[in-house]
Amino acid sequence: MQTIKDTCGNIRPLKKEFFDKAQSRLDILTKPHGSLGQLERFAARLVAIYEQEMPEIPKKAVFVFAGDHGVAAEGVSAYPAEVTPQMVLNFLSGGAAINVLARHAGADVLVIDAGVNYNFVDCPGLIQKKVVSGTKNCAKGPAMTRDEAIQAINVGISLAHEYAKKGIRMFATGDMGIANTTPSSAIAAVVTGKPVSEVTGRGTGIGDSDLEMKIAVIGRAIAVNAPDAKDPIDVLAKVGGAEIGAIAGLCLGAAELRLPVVIDGFISTAGAVIAYGLNETVKEYMFSAHRSHEIGHRAILAHMGLTPMLELDMRLGEGTGAAIAMTILDASLKIYREMATFQAAGVSDKS
Amino acid sequence: MQTIKDTCGNIRPLKKEFFDKAQSRLDILTKPHGSLGQLERFAARLVAIYEQEMPEIPKKAVFVFAGDHGVAAEGVSAYPAEVTPQMVLNFLSGGAAINVLARHAGADVLVIDAGVNYNFVDCPGLIQKKVVSGTKNCAKGPAMTRDEAIQAINVGISLAHEYAKKGIRMFATGDMGIANTTPSSAIAAVVTGKPVSEVTGRGTGIGDSDLEMKIAVIGRAIAVNAPDAKDPIDVLAKVGGAEIGAIAGLCLGAAELRLPVVIDGFISTAGAVIAYGLNETVKEYMFSAHRSHEIGHRAILAHMGLTPMLELDMRLGEGTGAAIAMTILDASLKIYREMATFQAAGVSDKS
Repeated sequence: MQTIKDTCGNIRPLKKEFFDKAQSRLDILTKPHGSLGQLERFAARLVAIYEQEMPEIPKKAVFVFAGDHGVAAEGVSAYPAEVTPQMVLNFLSGGAAINVLARHAGADVLVIDAGVNYNFVDCPGLIQKKVVSGTKNCAKGPAMTRDEAIQAINVGISLAHEYAKKGIRMFATGDMGIANTTPSSAIAAVVTGKPVSEVTGRGTGIGDSDLEMKIAVIGRAIAVNAPDAKDPIDVLAKVGGAEIGAIAGLCLGAAELRLPVVIDGFISTAGAVIAYGLNETVKEYMFSAHRSHEIGHRAILAHMGLTPMLELDMRLGEGTGAAIAMTILDASLKIYREMATFQAAGVSDKS
Repeated sequence: MQTIKDTCGNIRPLKKEFFDKAQSRLDILTKPHGSLGQLERFAARLVAIYEQEMPEIPKKAVFVFAGDHGVAAEGVSAYPAEVTPQMVLNFLSGGAAINVLARHAGADVLVIDAGVNYNFVDCPGLIQKKVVSGTKNCAKGPAMTRDEAIQAINVGISLAHEYAKKGIRMFATGDMGIANTTPSSAIAAVVTGKPVSEVTGRGTGIGDSDLEMKIAVIGRAIAVNAPDAKDPIDVLAKVGGAEIGAIAGLCLGAAELRLPVVIDGFISTAGAVIAYGLNETVKEYMFSAHRSHEIGHRAILAHMGLTPMLELDMRLGEGTGAAIAMTILDASLKIYREMATFQAAGVSDKS
């Protein structure tokens, strides 16, 4: 069986020659050089990722990984834990925000049980990859064993391979898990070295006193578990979550397969930074969709040197920001593919 | 015939009751309250603009107004003036960036000759509304007469009415006109009262010495013409352009008809601020698409108190930023229309 190490070993940096080829084409299209700004840079990076001079508009999928968190028992979320399986069913019936926005983007929605504390039976469409039935309470001990963390990452890697074979050529990450901003903030604190209070926000909408309590809980989780910042799997196991591990795996798998992966908001970026800790080159295949409301998100993005595409003040997760970002990546590729050249259109270039 | 004053008199502020109705619905959809950030605010404003509790996804059009500028003779642009008619033909044959992005957005492209210095013959699809054959050189005297400025505004108003009758329910503004960042910077300086150097950028890509010269030319245009900042039509006539006036008219017509108008970048916003000077309420119907690279754009947006939806470092014009912004407005309406409620989906709301 292929190991995480094998996957990481297969990830290659993007080649400058493809960026150059892409820019050469962009510069003969009927517009001032560089005037489409980020759209041009997105198109060039997609060309370099695919290693194709004229990439097709890709088939797209949003992978929504669901998991529960033992730390919810500490009262860190505004919503009860039962909402995780309820929302999984909502995803499957097509009524959630990610269903609407993925349809808008022309992307499939794949719903994966990575670690929900609920026994789904008779749920057509649900991808069953349960690693744990909810993590343990990280404020009292490790959220997962090291083996479970590895298994969670492998869920993402194997799905990347499976859906690449099915023709999906652009991935987006999404998450569902009541309380999962808590492990995400814990990961942010550990990997960036910042104080917990500087990477912890209100999640789905807790008040001031609950925010103080959440910060204390995360501080306790880090103190109790002493995760090793240099060992991303240790960080994931001790203060992370199964869906966060699966997101990390999807990122690694995408990079191995030379496919772009659009990273949604805070929880997805917490997964992305676990992947980045395992192999920094994975970042070259990532597009950060949007800057979410959560302050920990900014800290992780800065740590990885990623700039988000959009800032729409969203804080929902599910892959909602990533779905919108995919529409803009499509736009960038259409510009690259469909615009007329100066010569073909008989337009004078800059003198 | 209806006058600009009549149109301005027909513009009504949005009603709070429609914002409230929209928010009531947004708050029962299966997501934490407010978690879709700007998307929720866009949807609520569209509901208030349309005065409909469940607006349809609108038919859309991008109005690309083309015009030439006598001030191009001063060498303020990196491109020769012949590019304006060449690009008009490119729009009509579908090869320009706005054609690609409007197709992506599901919007029609309407190409209007508002003031091009070229005699178009046998150009199917071109909407002939020529007010001037290029403006006069504003560095030496008024760009247009007051009557021409009024006529340019009326082009936009009458097109708004015509295409609303044809079923278009969301407008976007676009522009084409070599040298038109120069009149736009002049308008920005006059309406905001800022020094010319703080509202003047590199347009399609001039170098340092040309930028200094451009600033001097704009300073001369303002000194020679002494436009009256309190009289938007005077500003438009003396240092503006025909396409900028038509954009102002489209904004006024949209607001009169209770239709949203998506304002593209710098030149479009220069048109929008002329409309705003005639009736500040027009702003309630405007969505600023994106923050362009041009510094004068920021100054006008701040003057009107508008916040752009996107920041993609674009500086092309044509309506390209507005086309992308329309896809996000569609997404916001789809969220509003298509998401399941907590009750229908059997999901627990915040405790």
